[in-house]
Amino acid sequence: MTLPPEFALIARHFRPLAGPGALELSDDAAVMTPPPGRELVLAADAMVAGVHFLPDDPSETIGRKLLRTNLSDLASMGAAPLAYLLTASLPRDLPPDWLAGFSAGLAQDQAEFGISLLGGDTTSTPGPMSFSLTILGHVAPGQALRRVGAMPGQDIWVSGTIGDGTLGLAVLLGELPGEAGGHLATRYRLPRPRVALGQALVGLATAAMDVSDGLVQDLGHLCRASGCGAEIEAARVPLSAEAAALLAARPELLPRILTGGDDYELLFAAPPEAAAEITARAAASGVAATRIGRFLPGEAVVTVRDARGGAIPLGREGWSHF
Amino acid sequence: MTLPPEFALIARHFRPLAGPGALELSDDAAVMTPPPGRELVLAADAMVAGVHFLPDDPSETIGRKLLRTNLSDLASMGAAPLAYLLTASLPRDLPPDWLAGFSAGLAQDQAEFGISLLGGDTTSTPGPMSFSLTILGHVAPGQALRRVGAMPGQDIWVSGTIGDGTLGLAVLLGELPGEAGGHLATRYRLPRPRVALGQALVGLATAAMDVSDGLVQDLGHLCRASGCGAEIEAARVPLSAEAAALLAARPELLPRILTGGDDYELLFAAPPEAAAEITARAAASGVAATRIGRFLPGEAVVTVRDARGGAIPLGREGWSHF
Repeated sequence: MTLPPEFALIARHFRPLAGPGALELSDDAAVMTPPPGRELVLAADAMVAGVHFLPDDPSETIGRKLLRTNLSDLASMGAAPLAYLLTASLPRDLPPDWLAGFSAGLAQDQAEFGISLLGGDTTSTPGPMSFSLTILGHVAPGQALRRVGAMPGQDIWVSGTIGDGTLGLAVLLGELPGEAGGHLATRYRLPRPRVALGQALVGLATAAMDVSDGLVQDLGHLCRASGCGAEIEAARVPLSAEAAALLAARPELLPRILTGGDDYELLFAAPPEAAAEITARAAASGVAATRIGRFLPGEAVVTVRDARGGAIPLGREGWSHF
Repeated sequence: MTLPPEFALIARHFRPLAGPGALELSDDAAVMTPPPGRELVLAADAMVAGVHFLPDDPSETIGRKLLRTNLSDLASMGAAPLAYLLTASLPRDLPPDWLAGFSAGLAQDQAEFGISLLGGDTTSTPGPMSFSLTILGHVAPGQALRRVGAMPGQDIWVSGTIGDGTLGLAVLLGELPGEAGGHLATRYRLPRPRVALGQALVGLATAAMDVSDGLVQDLGHLCRASGCGAEIEAARVPLSAEAAALLAARPELLPRILTGGDDYELLFAAPPEAAAEITARAAASGVAATRIGRFLPGEAVVTVRDARGGAIPLGREGWSHF
C-alpha cells in the first residue's frame, strides 16, 4: 500500500522537526509530560499570505516569523519556551522546494530557541497560504508577567528598537528606499523575540506585553488592563540607526514608527528604583532596554510628547484587522 | 481611547467562551496549571472553507465541527478534554450575525463536552475563511492509546456508523437525494466525537485511532504503525439506516462509504477475549461498537472482503489533500 502525497509530504518536511512527545507525528495527538511544579503558558497566532507576510517572502523566513511572533508572546509573559503545534494550509501547486525552505527555517529556529514541533495538521487551500501556530511555555506558579500591574509613577520601558518592522515592510513594498536584504526588511521578516529578557524580568517588571500592533495602541492595552494613563517622550523611543536616518530625512514617518506593527519588542512597567537592575538584566540578555516615559493616574489615555512637551497627533494608534 | 473593531469583535464573540486560565483573552497568553499526575495530550487541526466545510454551512456548525474533529483526536488517544485555543482568519465583509452564530455553536459544544476557550487569534484574510484549533486533554501516564499495538489475530472494531459523513457531503452537494437537515448532512456538519468511549477503552484496546480520512486508508495507517495487515468484511461495517437505504438502491456507493472521509468514529484493536467487555463499555458510553474484521500477520495491506470472501476493488483508499 503506497501512502498518498499528503503523508509523504509530512514525513519529509515535518517529521524531522518533531521532538519529544510528538510520537513522530504518526499518532492522532502528542503526549507530553508537563514540567513538574510549573504553570503552562499557551498562545496561538495565525498568519495569512498578503496580510502578515508578503507572498514572495522567502519560505525560509515565513515559518520562522510565525514561530517568533509566538515566542514573543511567551517572552511577554516571562515564560520559557517548550514546544509548538503548527497547522499549514497550502496551495496544491506549491513549488517542490518551497516546503524544504520552510522547514529548514523552522529547524534553524528550533535550535536557536530550544524548542521542537509537537504536532499539527497540513491541509490544502484554494486561497492564500495560511498558517497557525500554538506555542507552549512554562513559568513558576503565579509568576507570569501580566498586562495588569502597572502603577502611576512607574516607568515605561521598551526593549530593542521600535519601528523597524513597519519601515521594513515599506521598504519591501518599494514605498521607502532600502535593500530587501537590509536591516529594516530583515526585521520585518524575522522578528527577534526577547525570550531571555522576558524571563529575566520575572519578579522585577510589574506588567508586560509585547509590541505587535503598534507601540501607542499596545501601550493603551496595557494602560486599560492596569487602570492608568501613560505619556511617552518621542525623542526617547529607541530607533535603529537605519530608522533614525530615515526619520531624519522624512520627519513625517514618526507616526508610522510609533503606531506601525511588527515590532515584537517587550513593553513593560517597573518602579523607578528598579532601573539599574533592569538595565543590567537587559544587557545580560543581549538587548538594550530603554525608559521612554511614565505611567500616570487617570484614564487609559496614551500621550506622545515632543521635545517641547507638546502632544503629537498620530492619526490611528495601531493596526486592526477589521 | 476607543478600541479598534478587532478588539470589540473579540470581546463580544470570543471572551464569553473564555474559561479558567484564559485571563479573559486580554493578555498575550493563557496561564494554566496542568492536572497533577497526568500527561497532556495535544492535537491541532485546520479547516478551510470549501475544503473542510461548505462556505454556506450554517456558522453555528462550523466552529463545532472543528472543535469536534479535535475532540475526536483526543478520543482516539483515550484522553479527557481540557481546553482549546482557536485562530480564525475571516473576510472583512463577514455579515454581522455570522460570528454570533459561530460563537453560539461553540458555547453549546463547550457545555456538552466540558471544555473552554484558552486563547487564540483573530485575523483578516483576503481568501476563504479558515480556522485552526489546538486542543488539550489529559490521560494517566503511559496510558494513552496509540496506533502501535495491534497484533495479528486481534479484532478490528469500529464505533458508531461508517460513511454517513461522506454521503452527507454528497447530499449537500446535490449528488445524492436527501435533506440538508437530515441525518447524513447533519453527520457531515456535526461529527460525534466518541470522547466517553475513547476513555473507556484505555487499558482494554491495544491500539486506536479515529477514522477521519476514510476507513480503509486509516486502517492502513494503524496497520503500518503496528506492523501487521488487516482484512475487513464489508457486510460487517456498521451503517446507519439512511446509509444502508442508499447503498441498497445504489450498490456502487460501497467504495465511497469505505474510503470517504468525515466519519470521526473510533477504529481500534482488541484481543477476541475482550469482546464482551468492549460491547458493555461501548453501550455504557452511549454508542455501539462493532467487530468488522481481524488483524493479520504480514505486510500493512488492508483487504475488504465481500460475502463470498472475494476482495473488493476500491480505487482510492481515502482522502489526501495533495
